[in-house]
Amino acid sequence: MANKIRVTIWNEFRHEKNEGSLAQKYYPNGIHAQIKSFLDECDDLEVRLACLDDPDQGIPNEVLDNTDVLMWWGHCYHSDVRDDRVEYIRHRVYQGGMGFVACHSAHESKPFKAIVGTSGALSWGDEYPEIMWNLKPSHPIAAGVPDHFDLELEELYAEPFYIPDPDDLIFAGWYPTGHIFRAGATYTRGMGRVFYFQPGHESCPSFHNPNVQQVLKNGVHWCAPTKPGYDVPQGCPYIKPIYGEWPKNED
Amino acid sequence: MANKIRVTIWNEFRHEKNEGSLAQKYYPNGIHAQIKSFLDECDDLEVRLACLDDPDQGIPNEVLDNTDVLMWWGHCYHSDVRDDRVEYIRHRVYQGGMGFVACHSAHESKPFKAIVGTSGALSWGDEYPEIMWNLKPSHPIAAGVPDHFDLELEELYAEPFYIPDPDDLIFAGWYPTGHIFRAGATYTRGMGRVFYFQPGHESCPSFHNPNVQQVLKNGVHWCAPTKPGYDVPQGCPYIKPIYGEWPKNED
Amino acid sequence: MANKIRVTIWNEFRHEKNEGSLAQKYYPNGIHAQIKSFLDECDDLEVRLACLDDPDQGIPNEVLDNTDVLMWWGHCYHSDVRDDRVEYIRHRVYQGGMGFVACHSAHESKPFKAIVGTSGALSWGDEYPEIMWNLKPSHPIAAGVPDHFDLELEELYAEPFYIPDPDDLIFAGWYPTGHIFRAGATYTRGMGRVFYFQPGHESCPSFHNPNVQQVLKNGVHWCAPTKPGYDVPQGCPYIKPIYGEWPKNED
Amino acid sequence: MANKIRVTIWNEFRHEKNEGSLAQKYYPNGIHAQIKSFLDECDDLEVRLACLDDPDQGIPNEVLDNTDVLMWWGHCYHSDVRDDRVEYIRHRVYQGGMGFVACHSAHESKPFKAIVGTSGALSWGDEYPEIMWNLKPSHPIAAGVPDHFDLELEELYAEPFYIPDPDDLIFAGWYPTGHIFRAGATYTRGMGRVFYFQPGHESCPSFHNPNVQQVLKNGVHWCAPTKPGYDVPQGCPYIKPIYGEWPKNED
Repeated sequence: MANKIRVTIWNEFRHEKNEGSLAQKYYPNGIHAQIKSFLDECDDLEVRLACLDDPDQGIPNEVLDNTDVLMWWGHCYHSDVRDDRVEYIRHRVYQGGMGFVACHSAHESKPFKAIVGTSGALSWGDEYPEIMWNLKPSHPIAAGVPDHFDLELEELYAEPFYIPDPDDLIFAGWYPTGHIFRAGATYTRGMGRVFYFQPGHESCPSFHNPNVQQVLKNGVHWCAPTKPGYDVPQGCPYIKPIYGEWPKNED
Repeated sequence: MANKIRVTIWNEFRHEKNEGSLAQKYYPNGIHAQIKSFLDECDDLEVRLACLDDPDQGIPNEVLDNTDVLMWWGHCYHSDVRDDRVEYIRHRVYQGGMGFVACHSAHESKPFKAIVGTSGALSWGDEYPEIMWNLKPSHPIAAGVPDHFDLELEELYAEPFYIPDPDDLIFAGWYPTGHIFRAGATYTRGMGRVFYFQPGHESCPSFHNPNVQQVLKNGVHWCAPTKPGYDVPQGCPYIKPIYGEWPKNED
Repeated sequence: MANKIRVTIWNEFRHEKNEGSLAQKYYPNGIHAQIKSFLDECDDLEVRLACLDDPDQGIPNEVLDNTDVLMWWGHCYHSDVRDDRVEYIRHRVYQGGMGFVACHSAHESKPFKAIVGTSGALSWGDEYPEIMWNLKPSHPIAAGVPDHFDLELEELYAEPFYIPDPDDLIFAGWYPTGHIFRAGATYTRGMGRVFYFQPGHESCPSFHNPNVQQVLKNGVHWCAPTKPGYDVPQGCPYIKPIYGEWPKNED
Repeated sequence: MANKIRVTIWNEFRHEKNEGSLAQKYYPNGIHAQIKSFLDECDDLEVRLACLDDPDQGIPNEVLDNTDVLMWWGHCYHSDVRDDRVEYIRHRVYQGGMGFVACHSAHESKPFKAIVGTSGALSWGDEYPEIMWNLKPSHPIAAGVPDHFDLELEELYAEPFYIPDPDDLIFAGWYPTGHIFRAGATYTRGMGRVFYFQPGHESCPSFHNPNVQQVLKNGVHWCAPTKPGYDVPQGCPYIKPIYGEWPKNED
């Protein structure tokens, strides 16, 4: 039990409450509950849910302190997220190695922008079919994923996407409208690993797509923290020579 | 004139005012003035100075709007820098392509951390001789720089340095104490280019070193903005199809 | 004169000799001559031509020794290129910093594969319109290039493209067929800089496209060698300590 | 059983046969046998040995076809390795995703140079103590490894090391002589993953060092192939449109 990867799926969980919305139709219990349903297929994951309207926005320090990988779904309410929560998430990623999986519109969420260092700017449009291309099939996040797969409908996200060069660019999307988009990208920041994956608009069924599910399962595992062989210090420690004779350090 | 690269060198400019300090001895007119003295040897640079204790901390919007490359030297007074200045600097880098050259302790400055996405954490110690190694001699920032050069004395900065993987790792430092440090690294963030270079402790003469001067001249030129062939939009524009028949967009 | 960048454009120059072919229609004097015509607009370039059927395949050692940037166009006759020429090109890139600009089907040419370390494998199809997207507008190779531009017809090149992760991924192509392709990518290998750019099928007019021309002008300048501040040694030199007392090296 | 990672450790196995040599003292059964002894501690690895003087140099096609990760130790006899073996190794990495772990002097081996695309050039010297620094503690290859560790004696390998920018730079070495070296680096090439790790001179006891052993165990696991969700094609397949009406492809 103790060795399970502890995943917290955070969701605004507001769109799905709009009566008669497609969000409600596709995700009656919330996007986060749908994601949990397929992550639960992995024996080594222990998944809990958190929402914007929970106390402490669902992510008090004690939850984050006990989270190995935080998945984030936000779209229209980025500005409601408290800055102290953002700051603690960043701290947990940089210092504690907590993984961060950013879904869809999280490209513009406060935590993603603060962790990665980006404005998250891109172009966007209506919903169209999308073909997802696998650019790095050798990567663990692409394990079991075909060379391309279809999404019946997704929000148009398009280049230029003003992100830092990814450590790994794993997926890119094609739209019939003439647009492309770097849709799956990894980053390392401090001790933590970050994966951005674009599918998942609230009014599209992408989280029911088996390939999207496979990618997210892989992504959560990839972002899980590695155990370093030393205690990562807080801040910038003062150090003394480990080699040679340096009398002025003999205090 | 219009085509010159407009450089603003920002400095805390407090250490150098301490009577009898080494900072004052090495940099009687300030570290920024010393940097200006050698950048002025480049005909294509137009260099101005700015200090923490100037009005608007030396960097009101109109100065930043007319700066192509901002050099930053800060060490002990990071927390005095106003958050609105940090935010505008980040905006200018991401949106306007302003270059950012981070000197020495700027690894922990607010703008560097916000632009790049890092805690800037490292280990540090007293002052020792340093040998600077050239890891990427093919890079424009290494033009004219030998395979290694000596710094007679520098503050010890040591790994692990918790930075994102650099786009280019150009220099790394060796200390006789048993430590090494990734000392010269580039990043691209939004439209802007960033260069971090480690030498330049206030009580060390590194800004008088010809190789350090060469590297910084190169770095300023490398960080100068490229003129894109389109107007980079603010934020995330809504776009329509550029290919195919999509009636729902015919509004 | 001495400071001009010396460019050699190498071309198979066989397709264009087929009577009545589109290659002949678009490039009556050869693809290489067409590329030269627009590179000649740059005052700082000195351009010469070389062909597969020239003596020594147009690239004897003395030509390569006096070339700063080698552009390569090959498609159907890769296997005719002599291995000793490939080896000397690789030597010039790794050791001498000669730039290498690989056009179109050069992804599968012997020199590109040997320099970069790749099979160059991709998927390909017939000719379709292509939209070229600008993924890294901050890069010098993208200077003056719009966020996207049209190619009226190009050979379909598609992912997965089994290349190493590029240092910079600058362009990617969209085809109406459902395919995308990483179309503009840089590499550093040894002392040399490499740029791959996909447009330029022999029966398509892409080398008449102003944006393609701009990209190739930029690419040639970007690949030009940087002058290091030391003599790059041949092979692996034996070295002695530069610090400390090491009696066994006192020979 | 079927799911074990099949590791083949290749060794020149000539130095260790020199009577009275340090190589024989430290590795009486060969460097490869010593590496096997600690890899065998991992239940999920199935390890076999291969040597330069075995039939087909120990690596006939059927061995390579059944190898998931190939470790390579070579130093003085690189030129004895048959080119057809090098070519098949490269094929297996690019096409089949076979991992490749290059130990010590394998930086200059034929397979490493061909796979990665490098001359492998560096500077080298006598043997000195080395401190290995952990630059990317978040990486799986650094799991369980301290922030630095000592090697009592290693051959001096020094910068500039003319390698392509690593995907991940995980370790770098410090020598008391004033030199540093990028000692642990990863690459992705085609479908395969590559890890270079510097310790392991034949007359030094580094393969008895617990931290070196930990790194190599991690490295073998990291290089093991990922199972893609499609059959990776040989060469460059011809493809048809997957979207839209394209009559000319209706053959």
